[in-house]
Amino acid sequence: MTARVQTVTIVGMGLIGGSYGLAMRERHLAERVIGVSRREATLRAARELGACDEATADLVAGCRDSDLVILCAPVSLIPEHARIIAASVPAAAIVTDAGSTKAAIVQQCEAALAGAARFVGGHPMAGSELAGVQHARADLFEGATYAVTKTPRTEEKAFAAIERLALQLGAKPLLIDAQVHDEVVALTSHLPHLVAFALASAVWSGHADKRAIACLAASGYRDTTRVAGASAELWVDIFRQNREALLCALDTFSEELAALRTALADGDEAALLRLLQAANDGRARVMRTEP
Amino acid sequence: MTARVQTVTIVGMGLIGGSYGLAMRERHLAERVIGVSRREATLRAARELGACDEATADLVAGCRDSDLVILCAPVSLIPEHARIIAASVPAAAIVTDAGSTKAAIVQQCEAALAGAARFVGGHPMAGSELAGVQHARADLFEGATYAVTKTPRTEEKAFAAIERLALQLGAKPLLIDAQVHDEVVALTSHLPHLVAFALASAVWSGHADKRAIACLAASGYRDTTRVAGASAELWVDIFRQNREALLCALDTFSEELAALRTALADGDEAALLRLLQAANDGRARVMRTEP
Repeated sequence: MTARVQTVTIVGMGLIGGSYGLAMRERHLAERVIGVSRREATLRAARELGACDEATADLVAGCRDSDLVILCAPVSLIPEHARIIAASVPAAAIVTDAGSTKAAIVQQCEAALAGAARFVGGHPMAGSELAGVQHARADLFEGATYAVTKTPRTEEKAFAAIERLALQLGAKPLLIDAQVHDEVVALTSHLPHLVAFALASAVWSGHADKRAIACLAASGYRDTTRVAGASAELWVDIFRQNREALLCALDTFSEELAALRTALADGDEAALLRLLQAANDGRARVMRTEP
Repeated sequence: MTARVQTVTIVGMGLIGGSYGLAMRERHLAERVIGVSRREATLRAARELGACDEATADLVAGCRDSDLVILCAPVSLIPEHARIIAASVPAAAIVTDAGSTKAAIVQQCEAALAGAARFVGGHPMAGSELAGVQHARADLFEGATYAVTKTPRTEEKAFAAIERLALQLGAKPLLIDAQVHDEVVALTSHLPHLVAFALASAVWSGHADKRAIACLAASGYRDTTRVAGASAELWVDIFRQNREALLCALDTFSEELAALRTALADGDEAALLRLLQAANDGRARVMRTEP
């Protein structure tokens, strides 16, 4: 793969797939961008928004001439798509994905594409609670960490190509083991989503005066629950794919919450202060530390 | 009180007190704004930033000529400040506060000021995780709900004056019972803060690979934990003042979280989907419903 791809096929033209298309066209990273979606309305919107040059519902035909295939469907569909394209994708093509989980996807996609194409797992840490190609943005990946996985089966040139793609999209590539990725995103992404969903439900169900709830919810509520506006279907899929790591992250969270509850119930202000300061400190470290 | 106050005294020149000062000066809502703080550096900054015309560390002297006193210190100090100024504040003056909790403050301030001035409890639902007068903004209250309490002891004219002040600041006044206020803000504000603190601690302590945590934390983490960057001292104070209601809100949250955990651990995707959709729905209702 040269710095410019001849033909890229994006499978799944939602927020993420559409943003790849917009970014790659705007930055002239490919000669030709083919968008694949099952839904006719999505294909029409993707074309109208300029997220692809060509749009098709035919997954096999859409990948026949590709130099690069980016699998952007919900996580549970990605391995299935890899199996379907294995028969038609050129042997020299590189296949990557943008799934929020990596271990199962990398293992299943490598198996599906063995001998058919070179697979490299990817995950741009960018998104939004707003789903659909209509929310796609050419700058979605700018400044974002872009996780790229490597296994004993990963070809060095294919890995380098995905690393370069990340840079060309304005993102910061991060080589990471798939299992470590899943454990860490369980904490940094999946747990905040699960907690936000629980919080949004608790706030709404916690008091009979619904008007007061709506009036007294301010920016703290808005930001803390923002991701609870995300697609329920998409997140059931992600939670399921990363269940073990998420349950483990949830246990860590529950311990922190229990410690806060005990300090609060006991009126132990010194303990409460220490816990809040530890949280201040943890957040500062996460937000300030750069790759 | 006419539409324009002669002399307003703001007690506590932090983010909130400073924002009252900036807003009232910019909007010409008072002839003279006096800022009170114990700290010399804060008084200097408040003067330099234009958050007050005069600044003093002397609480009693600062309230001697006031037509309106706004108590903006941390919640546990507000009743104490009311007791201190009772001897010097003019009998015709109106005293209000901006505390995040209302029941205890209203009861204690009414008692402290009985016969000395007219008290009306207030709470502008605006703030930031950034503390201090240097973060004060003249538009902080714009568009925010401004809770105003009324008790059998509240004078109608004093209540109307605070309601008008809220409107003059660009906020939306909401008449609310102090107890209901505290129960509802326990859900809409205090619980999101407590959960964000627990989340920030869990994410940082949940994995040994600290670099990966920092790299893989994206906008979901950033927004969900934003308020965990708030002052630990300030929030220990608020949590303590509203302990009973917060423990009750925390129980509701824990039930929602337990239901999610069970559905996840059991692999019950239908239940998980229903729970996430209920959260979607709850958030949409809170965000769309207008006063």
